Amino acid sequence: MAHVLGQNQYGKAENRIVRVYRDSTRHEIKDLNVSVALSGEFDDVHLTGSNANCLPTDTTKNTVFAFAKEYGIDSAEAFGILLARHFVDDTERGVVHRARIRIEEYTWDRIRTPDDNARFIGSEEAGHSFGHSFVRNGQEVRTSEIVYDGESVQVISGLKDLVVLNSTNSEFWGYIKDKYTTLQEAYDRILATQVTARWKYGFTGRDDEAQPNWNRCYTHVKRHLLEAFAETYSYSLQQTLHAMGTRVLNNRAEVDEVRLELPNKHHFLVDLEPFGLKNENEVYYAADRMYGLIEGTVHREGVVPVIPVV
Amino acid sequence: MAHVLGQNQYGKAENRIVRVYRDSTRHEIKDLNVSVALSGEFDDVHLTGSNANCLPTDTTKNTVFAFAKEYGIDSAEAFGILLARHFVDDTERGVVHRARIRIEEYTWDRIRTPDDNARFIGSEEAGHSFGHSFVRNGQEVRTSEIVYDGESVQVISGLKDLVVLNSTNSEFWGYIKDKYTTLQEAYDRILATQVTARWKYGFTGRDDEAQPNWNRCYTHVKRHLLEAFAETYSYSLQQTLHAMGTRVLNNRAEVDEVRLELPNKHHFLVDLEPFGLKNENEVYYAADRMYGLIEGTVHREGVVPVIPVV
Amino acid sequence: MAHVLGQNQYGKAENRIVRVYRDSTRHEIKDLNVSVALSGEFDDVHLTGSNANCLPTDTTKNTVFAFAKEYGIDSAEAFGILLARHFVDDTERGVVHRARIRIEEYTWDRIRTPDDNARFIGSEEAGHSFGHSFVRNGQEVRTSEIVYDGESVQVISGLKDLVVLNSTNSEFWGYIKDKYTTLQEAYDRILATQVTARWKYGFTGRDDEAQPNWNRCYTHVKRHLLEAFAETYSYSLQQTLHAMGTRVLNNRAEVDEVRLELPNKHHFLVDLEPFGLKNENEVYYAADRMYGLIEGTVHREGVVPVIPVV
Amino acid sequence: MAHVLGQNQYGKAENRIVRVYRDSTRHEIKDLNVSVALSGEFDDVHLTGSNANCLPTDTTKNTVFAFAKEYGIDSAEAFGILLARHFVDDTERGVVHRARIRIEEYTWDRIRTPDDNARFIGSEEAGHSFGHSFVRNGQEVRTSEIVYDGESVQVISGLKDLVVLNSTNSEFWGYIKDKYTTLQEAYDRILATQVTARWKYGFTGRDDEAQPNWNRCYTHVKRHLLEAFAETYSYSLQQTLHAMGTRVLNNRAEVDEVRLELPNKHHFLVDLEPFGLKNENEVYYAADRMYGLIEGTVHREGVVPVIPVV
Repeated sequence: MAHVLGQNQYGKAENRIVRVYRDSTRHEIKDLNVSVALSGEFDDVHLTGSNANCLPTDTTKNTVFAFAKEYGIDSAEAFGILLARHFVDDTERGVVHRARIRIEEYTWDRIRTPDDNARFIGSEEAGHSFGHSFVRNGQEVRTSEIVYDGESVQVISGLKDLVVLNSTNSEFWGYIKDKYTTLQEAYDRILATQVTARWKYGFTGRDDEAQPNWNRCYTHVKRHLLEAFAETYSYSLQQTLHAMGTRVLNNRAEVDEVRLELPNKHHFLVDLEPFGLKNENEVYYAADRMYGLIEGTVHREGVVPVIPVV
Repeated sequence: MAHVLGQNQYGKAENRIVRVYRDSTRHEIKDLNVSVALSGEFDDVHLTGSNANCLPTDTTKNTVFAFAKEYGIDSAEAFGILLARHFVDDTERGVVHRARIRIEEYTWDRIRTPDDNARFIGSEEAGHSFGHSFVRNGQEVRTSEIVYDGESVQVISGLKDLVVLNSTNSEFWGYIKDKYTTLQEAYDRILATQVTARWKYGFTGRDDEAQPNWNRCYTHVKRHLLEAFAETYSYSLQQTLHAMGTRVLNNRAEVDEVRLELPNKHHFLVDLEPFGLKNENEVYYAADRMYGLIEGTVHREGVVPVIPVV
Repeated sequence: MAHVLGQNQYGKAENRIVRVYRDSTRHEIKDLNVSVALSGEFDDVHLTGSNANCLPTDTTKNTVFAFAKEYGIDSAEAFGILLARHFVDDTERGVVHRARIRIEEYTWDRIRTPDDNARFIGSEEAGHSFGHSFVRNGQEVRTSEIVYDGESVQVISGLKDLVVLNSTNSEFWGYIKDKYTTLQEAYDRILATQVTARWKYGFTGRDDEAQPNWNRCYTHVKRHLLEAFAETYSYSLQQTLHAMGTRVLNNRAEVDEVRLELPNKHHFLVDLEPFGLKNENEVYYAADRMYGLIEGTVHREGVVPVIPVV
Repeated sequence: MAHVLGQNQYGKAENRIVRVYRDSTRHEIKDLNVSVALSGEFDDVHLTGSNANCLPTDTTKNTVFAFAKEYGIDSAEAFGILLARHFVDDTERGVVHRARIRIEEYTWDRIRTPDDNARFIGSEEAGHSFGHSFVRNGQEVRTSEIVYDGESVQVISGLKDLVVLNSTNSEFWGYIKDKYTTLQEAYDRILATQVTARWKYGFTGRDDEAQPNWNRCYTHVKRHLLEAFAETYSYSLQQTLHAMGTRVLNNRAEVDEVRLELPNKHHFLVDLEPFGLKNENEVYYAADRMYGLIEGTVHREGVVPVIPVV
């Protein structure tokens, strides 16, 4: 029986680029991890050993660094769109049909010295900040994925490693009981999770005027995710997930689909009775594994969801 | 505009189970990491806070451990099929419509003491082996994903973290040169990669008699991947990928689709000229990032490929 | 020839404890990872199989959780001192002669909702903060090590994973040139490092009135490390290291020794000449490995340094 | 009060070198991760910004790669001795007083194709092996640390990440019971650990004829550690540790000190009673954290132990 070469893609992954803006005495930096994946007319590369159609991964890397100089990096999303269009539109003989750019962004805050008597938090508040000295923020990693197929652009932005915790306002009860059930119902528990979120923009690239303000939108989506997590009185992590997704859709017209992956970072009440102590929801053991994993998509009616399940 | 709850799933992830068989003085062990994801009638859980349809993730965990006792673990795949069918077929009121079981398996070898004068390698060869003492193999992690939707079963097996290297018989030249090209052509280079492979079986679960011998098949697929890597004179990692995938299809009739993800673990020749030394392909710097990443699927003609791109 | 049992210690490592304070509607949380190591009269445990002198690691774990309830956790250092003294002073027949408590602390900020028009940064600034909702800070991990030997207490506090970067004000030139030298001198480079710092307090535990305000001191040491990094015009990372250490000693009388481990997170200028572009210190490649690693201790005259080299 | 610069060291860490031997059609490879740390007359580098005494970390990296060509790599230990002596003995004006070389080594096996009907295990057994194709072994990482101070050499070799498990022949009972004790005594439990071992050789470098056969010795020490683990009927992990250390000293005259760090990789029996099942030591949950951590040194009488506690 014959074999067929199916979906394939290649490119340079994890190009770690730091772009410094030195236009004034107050520098700015962008810190990205850029991965390129190209698809197209690459059958011969796989089948015959001919590399005549192959744009080397090394060249895709060089392009990333050169573009950072030529065009600057205003946002990961805009930078990714430039790169994706270049690979598809400019490669010889049009052999690249589709380009996917994935970018992780690490945020840096300026190092600050506080006013006298101010509490120092290494972050933005009253006090003096240094013009060229930075401390990595570390709260979350910003992500984006840009796909261009020669016609339209698709942008899925996101974040990961954002760890949140509610110390109350979470219950879990009324569930199915079967022969394998031992879980006790909970009427006041810690709810903690490490948020991975991805959201798709309605932007298609057919009208570049319509490009959202990617950085501003990111800031607001993050804010809405955090606020919805904080404000939802929760009967399940699923309910919290749904509240977080709909909060984003309700507030950001640019976004038409949100997908969340929320591991339940279990905090188990420690039994202190053997030591003559009463644990009034005060002392918890934070477990690593196993963990509940709750995933789901919320999208606008009429939109065909595209964010892949992982 | 109204919002819609799209694809969603949940379950207990990373249940770390070790099953010991003590039927004779020579014990056997199975060491698995089992993750459960269920989909079905869970809209209310997300929307109303009612958990009436919710089988708790804790119960899915208990089920994994109980099944390990009740049914044993002959192979990860057979164990996953049992679990997936249970969750869909046996949960109250049929609220679970689809179950996905993912399993990582860690392999253990018996600890051995060599014959006198034998070279000791901590692995299977001539000499005495202990009946209840094991050393973790560490060469690769075996993976499997079983999906059951109430009608048919789909099994995708695989492996990851298998690191291989050819110290010659690899070239790369004749590629596209554009304004961003600086790479020198190579006529004798190291080719190294960390193999992630997934292969789908034709097995659909409609005839349980047709279950492949999962363990034997795994051993052979691994062998064919290694042999194809070793025997292919390579003009690109893409060509090697294709050779590995077709080798499996040519030799294992049970398999009808193979997908490979092959990061190019670059080994750069160190320039020793400044020190008056000639580097005749002897001294390499092993780089971490960035790396080429080559991904592709090979499947039988007529088969619709289903292994997702990640 | 006879063999001797030398230094040995044991205990439960990585007890992950979250302590919630629910005294008001505004909860507080402490999130610690506590590791216990005990030394003493444990020869029989090793030599004869008798556990008569063995306090099980499980019991040391229980003690950590019970103490969190009984005494609360004001600071990791004070909590560690309580635990260390308990194990040495209270264990049966005085078999524990020395206890070492190591603690990692993860910081949480309150989730905040901004005032209208305020920039949201998920951190402390103007706006409303939630009483029981938190987001993990992620900037650095706070560390402490408390040792008690029955007589005196030694406290070494620290931090790790604090990543900082100066985009200018760093040079490196005038070094030894030998036959293996190829490095070009640099007159304006990025200086970036991931700070691991440990500092020893003069506190000996003989006068508990003299306990420093551990939390306040930590905040200030971190501030001085950051400020010294930002304000030092650097001719080598060694010089920056020394400036950071002396800054702490100059400002915090409680501290008498500082040790720093500073990996040089290299940012290499990308050569853009082949693409007809001039890289004016704007585009850098952030390398993972290899990296320079600079380590050093600064201590007060007359103090015998005790922080171990790792 | 004046401040003093205490212990300090610097160098290039994690030089990832792969050395290929192509002398015949059957290639050989050595895969090392080499870290250099130099101490000496570096006060000015820290205090004045003068680098006149500084051998750049970049040069130490170049030296590692050049030496791999000039001298080859027979063993990590012998290679490290060459490097350490070079840095101390050959650096300009003798400014380096002490060099420490740490090396991790990753082992590769040849890829093999089995004889017909042979069981394939990707390791050494009957069948055909490829001359230039390798698969990374993955069982453990080999380590070594070489220190030279201008007079004598000290070699501490070791291994890490070697995971072993006994499925029976382990008990734990008869321990201290205090008010925080809840642990049940165990008369048949799984004993599993991830071995980190370091052993010091008596070799001082004063007589190079006396260099041990480092590779052969490594193989044997690993063998003795595994055999002692397997053959010891254990009443505590401490007892097993002691048996492992003494086994090495009893069998390898070159070694005069052994230190082991053995995390107790807990395998907890799952309670299956609620499901009407009896768990006869068959189904275990493998826990990540917290874990007991047992550390200890065994040394020959009269030897002053030097392997540091970490």
